[in-house]
Amino acid sequence: MSEILEVDLNGKRRLPLELIKASVIPAKTGWSHLLRANQYLRLTDTYGKQAADFWAFNAGDLDEHLSAMHTRVWLNKLCPGPGESFHSNHRRPILQLIADSCGVHDLLTAACDEHRYRQYGVEGGHPSCVGNLRLAMKAHFRDEFYVPQPVNFFMSVAVLPDGRVETGANPSKPGDHVVLKAWFDCVVAISACPQEFNPAAGWYPSDLHAAIYEAAQR
Amino acid sequence: MSEILEVDLNGKRRLPLELIKASVIPAKTGWSHLLRANQYLRLTDTYGKQAADFWAFNAGDLDEHLSAMHTRVWLNKLCPGPGESFHSNHRRPILQLIADSCGVHDLLTAACDEHRYRQYGVEGGHPSCVGNLRLAMKAHFRDEFYVPQPVNFFMSVAVLPDGRVETGANPSKPGDHVVLKAWFDCVVAISACPQEFNPAAGWYPSDLHAAIYEAAQR
Repeated sequence: MSEILEVDLNGKRRLPLELIKASVIPAKTGWSHLLRANQYLRLTDTYGKQAADFWAFNAGDLDEHLSAMHTRVWLNKLCPGPGESFHSNHRRPILQLIADSCGVHDLLTAACDEHRYRQYGVEGGHPSCVGNLRLAMKAHFRDEFYVPQPVNFFMSVAVLPDGRVETGANPSKPGDHVVLKAWFDCVVAISACPQEFNPAAGWYPSDLHAAIYEAAQR
Repeated sequence: MSEILEVDLNGKRRLPLELIKASVIPAKTGWSHLLRANQYLRLTDTYGKQAADFWAFNAGDLDEHLSAMHTRVWLNKLCPGPGESFHSNHRRPILQLIADSCGVHDLLTAACDEHRYRQYGVEGGHPSCVGNLRLAMKAHFRDEFYVPQPVNFFMSVAVLPDGRVETGANPSKPGDHVVLKAWFDCVVAISACPQEFNPAAGWYPSDLHAAIYEAAQR
């Protein structure tokens, strides 16, 4: 494909990227893909206000994964900013945050799962981010793996001075996106959060868009 | 044994507990034990300023464990207060915080591990909280399990309004303690953190004390 994405590196220079693959992630479903070292993932909130639950695993060893608790220790921050990296549970960088048009993401909240919807009293099955992750991973990778704390892109969770944790409305606008670069071969997985019972998906779950790029040859 | 511990339930009434077993956890080492439903664990920072990395697993299924991210979602707080419960990754209460003489605990920071000490450039082996957990669990329970986010009792980690995360000196005084009650049969594991390179163990790792009690028969 020939689409070129120009990414602004923090106002310093522009990085031309060539599209390898683009996918719509329909509302309430999951997606996973291999992201090779030095490839880029652009994750877009197509319609706005939609949380993207995100995980990344070492493609050669799913026991190594993006880890919120290790990222916090490395950065002394709740969430990386542009230029900073998400770290793995082996304490090395796994994905660099290259661009971020939203700036609000959550690394504190568990992904929704079957237990959550059972608690709500939803009858019959209900899609969940953990269920979406498992389905998406099973298709291409492995059945058995631990489900770590996700990065909830575009989700707003504030920590108040007294230690209360407050989930607010997602601030993302249509087209808001993040761009991530892999430090080593990863499996990345995304769930378009199917949560209708709090503001994580703007009360009406909607699609996401994922695209994989490489540095353009010029 | 006949020692009776009187626990003050938030000023409301006193709860007499009979000692079943008491253990010193020497500095830099780990400990694990079965805590049956309705038994109590008293964890004491004997000399003060010492972080206790703590985990709890369902005794019948180690894949279910105390989960910081699910506890936050349930309570909308970073850490339970007296009367509130830590929750599991199956979204049910696992341990109730019965008493807490310190009031400052951390559920954001990863346990120290072999990778951390290798990064410091420590030559040869160094004990770590994850290593202590694995050794303590192996002795009585199982070799293979996932290492979740610990509860770092007596450790001070502040979240600032701009999202920075700041580790301060542990505020615990000699004899500070927490008392936990099991909602179902658990394996509890504790590491007396061997970290000399930040304030988590007051720069000089020291002993902890663990005691298991049952409601006294009167």
